[in-house]
Amino acid sequence: MTPEALKALLNAVASGKTPVDAAADSLKHLSMEDLGFAHIDHHRSLRKGFPEVIFGENKTAGQIIGIMERMTLWEKVILVTRIDAEKARAVTDRFPEAKYHADARMIYLTDGPVPETGKGAILILSAGTSDIPVAKEAFLTAKAMGNTVEAIYDVGVAGIHRLFSHKEKIENAAVLIVVAGMEGALPSVVAGLVDRPVIAVPTSVGYGASFGGLTALFSMLNTCSSNVAVVNIDNGFGAGYMASCINRV
Amino acid sequence: MTPEALKALLNAVASGKTPVDAAADSLKHLSMEDLGFAHIDHHRSLRKGFPEVIFGENKTAGQIIGIMERMTLWEKVILVTRIDAEKARAVTDRFPEAKYHADARMIYLTDGPVPETGKGAILILSAGTSDIPVAKEAFLTAKAMGNTVEAIYDVGVAGIHRLFSHKEKIENAAVLIVVAGMEGALPSVVAGLVDRPVIAVPTSVGYGASFGGLTALFSMLNTCSSNVAVVNIDNGFGAGYMASCINRV
Amino acid sequence: MTPEALKALLNAVASGKTPVDAAADSLKHLSMEDLGFAHIDHHRSLRKGFPEVIFGENKTAGQIIGIMERMTLWEKVILVTRIDAEKARAVTDRFPEAKYHADARMIYLTDGPVPETGKGAILILSAGTSDIPVAKEAFLTAKAMGNTVEAIYDVGVAGIHRLFSHKEKIENAAVLIVVAGMEGALPSVVAGLVDRPVIAVPTSVGYGASFGGLTALFSMLNTCSSNVAVVNIDNGFGAGYMASCINRV
Amino acid sequence: MTPEALKALLNAVASGKTPVDAAADSLKHLSMEDLGFAHIDHHRSLRKGFPEVIFGENKTAGQIIGIMERMTLWEKVILVTRIDAEKARAVTDRFPEAKYHADARMIYLTDGPVPETGKGAILILSAGTSDIPVAKEAFLTAKAMGNTVEAIYDVGVAGIHRLFSHKEKIENAAVLIVVAGMEGALPSVVAGLVDRPVIAVPTSVGYGASFGGLTALFSMLNTCSSNVAVVNIDNGFGAGYMASCINRV
Amino acid sequence: MTPEALKALLNAVASGKTPVDAAADSLKHLSMEDLGFAHIDHHRSLRKGFPEVIFGENKTAGQIIGIMERMTLWEKVILVTRIDAEKARAVTDRFPEAKYHADARMIYLTDGPVPETGKGAILILSAGTSDIPVAKEAFLTAKAMGNTVEAIYDVGVAGIHRLFSHKEKIENAAVLIVVAGMEGALPSVVAGLVDRPVIAVPTSVGYGASFGGLTALFSMLNTCSSNVAVVNIDNGFGAGYMASCINRV
Amino acid sequence: MTPEALKALLNAVASGKTPVDAAADSLKHLSMEDLGFAHIDHHRSLRKGFPEVIFGENKTAGQIIGIMERMTLWEKVILVTRIDAEKARAVTDRFPEAKYHADARMIYLTDGPVPETGKGAILILSAGTSDIPVAKEAFLTAKAMGNTVEAIYDVGVAGIHRLFSHKEKIENAAVLIVVAGMEGALPSVVAGLVDRPVIAVPTSVGYGASFGGLTALFSMLNTCSSNVAVVNIDNGFGAGYMASCINRV
Amino acid sequence: MTPEALKALLNAVASGKTPVDAAADSLKHLSMEDLGFAHIDHHRSLRKGFPEVIFGENKTAGQIIGIMERMTLWEKVILVTRIDAEKARAVTDRFPEAKYHADARMIYLTDGPVPETGKGAILILSAGTSDIPVAKEAFLTAKAMGNTVEAIYDVGVAGIHRLFSHKEKIENAAVLIVVAGMEGALPSVVAGLVDRPVIAVPTSVGYGASFGGLTALFSMLNTCSSNVAVVNIDNGFGAGYMASCINRV
Amino acid sequence: MTPEALKALLNAVASGKTPVDAAADSLKHLSMEDLGFAHIDHHRSLRKGFPEVIFGENKTAGQIIGIMERMTLWEKVILVTRIDAEKARAVTDRFPEAKYHADARMIYLTDGPVPETGKGAILILSAGTSDIPVAKEAFLTAKAMGNTVEAIYDVGVAGIHRLFSHKEKIENAAVLIVVAGMEGALPSVVAGLVDRPVIAVPTSVGYGASFGGLTALFSMLNTCSSNVAVVNIDNGFGAGYMASCINRV
Repeated sequence: MTPEALKALLNAVASGKTPVDAAADSLKHLSMEDLGFAHIDHHRSLRKGFPEVIFGENKTAGQIIGIMERMTLWEKVILVTRIDAEKARAVTDRFPEAKYHADARMIYLTDGPVPETGKGAILILSAGTSDIPVAKEAFLTAKAMGNTVEAIYDVGVAGIHRLFSHKEKIENAAVLIVVAGMEGALPSVVAGLVDRPVIAVPTSVGYGASFGGLTALFSMLNTCSSNVAVVNIDNGFGAGYMASCINRV
Repeated sequence: MTPEALKALLNAVASGKTPVDAAADSLKHLSMEDLGFAHIDHHRSLRKGFPEVIFGENKTAGQIIGIMERMTLWEKVILVTRIDAEKARAVTDRFPEAKYHADARMIYLTDGPVPETGKGAILILSAGTSDIPVAKEAFLTAKAMGNTVEAIYDVGVAGIHRLFSHKEKIENAAVLIVVAGMEGALPSVVAGLVDRPVIAVPTSVGYGASFGGLTALFSMLNTCSSNVAVVNIDNGFGAGYMASCINRV
Repeated sequence: MTPEALKALLNAVASGKTPVDAAADSLKHLSMEDLGFAHIDHHRSLRKGFPEVIFGENKTAGQIIGIMERMTLWEKVILVTRIDAEKARAVTDRFPEAKYHADARMIYLTDGPVPETGKGAILILSAGTSDIPVAKEAFLTAKAMGNTVEAIYDVGVAGIHRLFSHKEKIENAAVLIVVAGMEGALPSVVAGLVDRPVIAVPTSVGYGASFGGLTALFSMLNTCSSNVAVVNIDNGFGAGYMASCINRV
Repeated sequence: MTPEALKALLNAVASGKTPVDAAADSLKHLSMEDLGFAHIDHHRSLRKGFPEVIFGENKTAGQIIGIMERMTLWEKVILVTRIDAEKARAVTDRFPEAKYHADARMIYLTDGPVPETGKGAILILSAGTSDIPVAKEAFLTAKAMGNTVEAIYDVGVAGIHRLFSHKEKIENAAVLIVVAGMEGALPSVVAGLVDRPVIAVPTSVGYGASFGGLTALFSMLNTCSSNVAVVNIDNGFGAGYMASCINRV
Repeated sequence: MTPEALKALLNAVASGKTPVDAAADSLKHLSMEDLGFAHIDHHRSLRKGFPEVIFGENKTAGQIIGIMERMTLWEKVILVTRIDAEKARAVTDRFPEAKYHADARMIYLTDGPVPETGKGAILILSAGTSDIPVAKEAFLTAKAMGNTVEAIYDVGVAGIHRLFSHKEKIENAAVLIVVAGMEGALPSVVAGLVDRPVIAVPTSVGYGASFGGLTALFSMLNTCSSNVAVVNIDNGFGAGYMASCINRV
Repeated sequence: MTPEALKALLNAVASGKTPVDAAADSLKHLSMEDLGFAHIDHHRSLRKGFPEVIFGENKTAGQIIGIMERMTLWEKVILVTRIDAEKARAVTDRFPEAKYHADARMIYLTDGPVPETGKGAILILSAGTSDIPVAKEAFLTAKAMGNTVEAIYDVGVAGIHRLFSHKEKIENAAVLIVVAGMEGALPSVVAGLVDRPVIAVPTSVGYGASFGGLTALFSMLNTCSSNVAVVNIDNGFGAGYMASCINRV
Repeated sequence: MTPEALKALLNAVASGKTPVDAAADSLKHLSMEDLGFAHIDHHRSLRKGFPEVIFGENKTAGQIIGIMERMTLWEKVILVTRIDAEKARAVTDRFPEAKYHADARMIYLTDGPVPETGKGAILILSAGTSDIPVAKEAFLTAKAMGNTVEAIYDVGVAGIHRLFSHKEKIENAAVLIVVAGMEGALPSVVAGLVDRPVIAVPTSVGYGASFGGLTALFSMLNTCSSNVAVVNIDNGFGAGYMASCINRV
Repeated sequence: MTPEALKALLNAVASGKTPVDAAADSLKHLSMEDLGFAHIDHHRSLRKGFPEVIFGENKTAGQIIGIMERMTLWEKVILVTRIDAEKARAVTDRFPEAKYHADARMIYLTDGPVPETGKGAILILSAGTSDIPVAKEAFLTAKAMGNTVEAIYDVGVAGIHRLFSHKEKIENAAVLIVVAGMEGALPSVVAGLVDRPVIAVPTSVGYGASFGGLTALFSMLNTCSSNVAVVNIDNGFGAGYMASCINRV
């Protein structure tokens, strides 16, 4: 209920057009129906290029297809995350234009090029070859959300000269996503080289005292570089999404 | 070494002014002094309004004063974080223009108003009254880094109507910092209301199974809202710093 | 042994009908059979509509069938929890009237409608679609114990307007069961809206720092709402049982 | 705002006594005071005997006194929890009628006997002598919320005959609160004896592998008795509050 | 109630001396008072030389003295564990014959030599000098319970020849208590040398990854020697008590 | 080398039959073969009825058979623990007299009745039906080591009257082994009833916050009964072995 | 770029052969290609006998073969670690001269004997038979890196005389690698016997409270012997590599 | 007993000078006194320059002085670690030539310059200023053990150019000790630059998710550089000791 509507109702009460009881009734649920909140804007912005996302992990191929069918496809992008090859085959059989990215375990469905709405370039760096799937998930998400995205893989801190050979791209990125498992040291080093926001993504790559990514996660939270914030283990999608939000501020 | 300086040196070699051996010597550490990396830009940007920051926790008052004296004060801001009242008194005795914020445990020293360089408004929300010190640390940091900042305290999820009464400010913020201890649920709710980046700060407020903030931290990392990234427990400074970086993208 | 039976025995001793030795013998295990404790009432109350429950996880189909055969079925309900589809098939082959609920992984066997003995309505809310199986387990348990039960799924805190659209049902429930994985924030929000007892059920839904439900569990234990108590991870049965006990106080 | 107050305002508008603009202004925050949601009922129920509660741990004596002064005392009870002796002295100096319970670390302030609104009796059992402070906190809370409450201390499972000697009281309670540290086994045993809801409260009593109450907490969550739900470590207040909610269902 | 007493009661009923109602009354609590269980024997055995034990940690000197005064001292031993020097002084002022062992933080009060009831010798071994207090607690407990006890300190595995120089005593012990902090390896080595039961006691000695004794505890639970069982961290009393029970089997 | 053999060697040197160099050679490894340590006695005691034990978990059927073949079978018992059905079949094909106990996952091979060398009876109690395999492992181990053993299953604390109905056996046991998963409360209750040594065995039975037996383990370590010591999770063999050592003290 | 190459370039500039701009260009990436850092030496030393290593765990057979094909084989050794039998078969089909060590899960490919460059002997000790695979991985790695290596298996602390029978080899080793799971006590004992550096390798062998090797890891970190440093759980390769570096100091 | 002494004894037996019984007696404890093991060499090597070390943490000043007095000072060095200022004052009052290093919390007592017995240079690098005390402990230990040692502080990964400016020293060190708290990334980066052994020392510096050094510890154990091994948290002494052992291989 807008302020105008509220005044109109009160005017109707003042003029006797609306009885007091009826007005009291219609004000009873005011707080709810009129939250009029940002999730509306949010949805709108989604329609402007943000992807519809389906978390595929605990859904059957049938459920995923059902959801996709209910989604209208005008000027939109649909992402399905964490979907294995078998389920993906069923989905791409039904939607032949959908593309399955096996390494990122994502399906990407769009009816045309996504308009670029991000301001700068998003750069994705990953430490080891085993971190690539998570990095790819971030890559495709940011791409689908209308950003210029670039990715550099296999630049872990144990051979730091590999990282430094990409100096220019690192300096020119507007937002950086840094993906690392094991000791999770890469975001600290990268964030020390730039004054841009760095989204750190720990991965579950490692063994023994890596605890499925927990060591990398804690390492990143303890970074001595201040321009770093962290998302959940293996959450490439979240990193891509967060970076896209930042790239539109 | 700038590209110009390099060429000048080579010209001097070409013209015989500088012998080869001397040139080789001065190029020996080129890789170091001339990494030419962003940390230079970074320092420059610091000079343009970003604060100098001293982590006060493990330093004596004498050490802090010493560092502050070595810092030139031209067009700069100096922050000292995690400094208790007693040490702060010693510092403000030496720098009378420095202001101690007891609740945030910070010293803030500036020689004039900080120019606003952030693009939008940063909004800081905190859940309980005990979370205010961390929220204040974020507030002062973001302020010192040239941002419009506003803070709303005591809007925890157990009485969610308090949060909703600030609808407009929440919707209008460019970046949000959400501070919460105990169950750490506030960032999830807030991030569901906006499509802006949300920096979540867990605090060590709580007892029993709150594990000094670990429960809030893990809760925030598991948020089902995708526009959230997390910093370390009680790291108000980091949140303010990260939000400032985002606000300049 | 009821008080009446005890007196009868003593009267028989007094009248010489029962020799002292025989009476001593039958009293020897008195402490056991006659603890006269609530578990007697408990069993009685079970016969009045509370279900017999078999925890199916570590039992073979044969064992489950054997136990069910030993249970007399007069005016009773039998629940088998945590039973997979294959074992369930064997059971329903033997007891065709038994119904297998695949999503809740439960078998429900009754010889007629369960009389409603609960005082008010039990409402079950769950956060994500993946939490539904646990919510269903709670639903069927509460149903089998003679309660009016209703369930609302997929009302997680990241889109809090979905929750608020069920305002009336939430306000009218006598007891609420709130099921959530990941950050486990839903019980805090719901409990802030009512003054009824809320049973919180963490689920193992999530990945990375969700630790198989531990984050949700700890989050719920740290709720700032005081009308919340928590059961074990994925323990939908326990929540339904506890809510039923509360609904008869 | 009560329904009566709302109608009075609307009547004043209808009769012209209150101009529309003034009415609109006073309704502007209606969504807050009148979310129309349960927290109104909640407040109402509070006025009917539920205490106002101030969590004293992180507040100064001055802050606590300030909050208490703003609370009107008509027909109300005020509880201050987790307040140490020194702060309590300052509070009782200002409010001489307030009583400090040193063992429970609570202040209890009421202007007359609390009317009994709970349906049955709440029984509090605790395992060791060191668990008594937490049990007392639960006791005073439930008392302040208008319940018949009784407490039995020092009936741990290592001498189970002590527990059994209170058979009658255990059987007759409507709701039970069971407080235990160390191995936390008491709630399992008690809940096996009754079919009433049992609120289990782990305490931080113990050493070594008791992990400040975590072992007791986990033990209680793993109980094989189904009529048990658990609150946070040392949370006697929460247990008393939850039990009171249950006792009014 | 002994079987004889039961028959006597029934005879009184049979002969009309005791009315049925009175007999029923006195049998009502039979299950409780007459569980006739080992705790009776247990108490008896305590009277035969087992110490009365007061856990001093959370008790005031006044409380401890009060408990000691209520204890009759005929042919008995009283132990107070975990009592610091200050409280101990108050106790020994009141009971001059009580002896305070500062290193073990125990008070030992007896009215004469404890008769030896243990079958063999109990040997206590400890790894580092910092483990001695816990070892002493075990020593005094076993001594007070009527055993021949000997202790060898500072025979950790990093200088294993020190351990081997006590070969004879190790071989001749009936029960061994092995106390160690840090890596907790000593019980494994000792238990490999004998076929007697070894009670392992982890201590909280260590730093960093010793986790207050947790590493030693887990190490001991994982021993590849099968004749080892473990008690809680720093639980010297429990080890002495358990060893005494074993020494009477 | 026995003392007799040593003297014989020295006599041979004295008489010139053995040259000094040869004697020195054969004494060179004396420190090893003749540590003269308990493991000799230990081996001897093994020959007197203690079983040879093969930990089957990480060994192939071939390796197990190989080891068994090298073991001479005179007056001996061989146990293979943690061996699954498939490997067991291969072993029993080769040793038809060996018996496979599927529930305990053990092979038991003996060439005649084991002489009873234990002093009293060992009683094994287990809480839930899922704990039986571990209890059986303890049972067979204690049996194989020459003890009178009895086992009572399914006497968990949630229905404590079941436990009490075995009062006599519990009181008469010389050593008790108590096996429990989930909350692990049974050893505390049992140890409170007797003054005999109780070996507590946590099992990995449970879900959620049972952490694969860790909750039961910690619960047992925190028991308020002092006559309890604990072995590793699911370590039925260790409990049976330890109880046997105790039963021979 | 070597110092010689740099001087040559500068000479070419001085002599006018290379124009300044071209020289500037080729020096632009100097900081990267010419960090001139030890990794160059490192690579060189690798060519002198250090193996090329491929971590096989997350790679397909095809990927592994591809990498191996790109590696030139002149005077080199190639190791593939953590490769299972099936993948190994594919690799050895392609490289028939490669040898698969099934127990160490390694492929070892060399074109001739590795020259011995290590100074002393590396001795590998392991505690249980299940630790052998990790010990073998260390063995093959150290062998491939040009060391004299010897291994002694199955000398755990529960039968310490087995360890002592290898006294001479232990004393003569230049570097020791000690591999143990379960309680992880062996490195402490061994390091107490020598003054050489000991690399401790925890293994994931064990069950229950061994936590997949964590207990062994923590035990080793807490060793009271000072000549011990630790690598990650099951990291036999790392231990062999580290020992080789030490053996060349 | 040396081989010579053994032969002498046997000769005495052969010649009849020593009766067989006497010889048997003196050989009885041979295994102990004559283990003839490396700890002898070890002690010898200590006398050649290795320091005597007293762990000061749990010892009184009196105990430390007592131990120091018993130590003969010929050609020796005595270190006392983890000793606070107050105790140190008492020690230096008694031994005026002893020097207290407040930052490293060590006392260093020597009667002349320690002869350099290490082969190469040991280099100590530390990340933050708060890590310096631990680094100093390592420095003094290595110094006392006869090594050339150098230290570079404050070269953390967030400003990696500071590290690179020490390129030469890093390349030339024989052994490196790298000390870091918080995210513990420095050892990975340093070890990637050299092929020398790197001893990593995690420190307890940090807050929140640094867990008192655990995050740094785990990070170091998960390093992707293979020439790294780790010691316990804050164990500067152990690192210095281990590095010294390596430097003598």
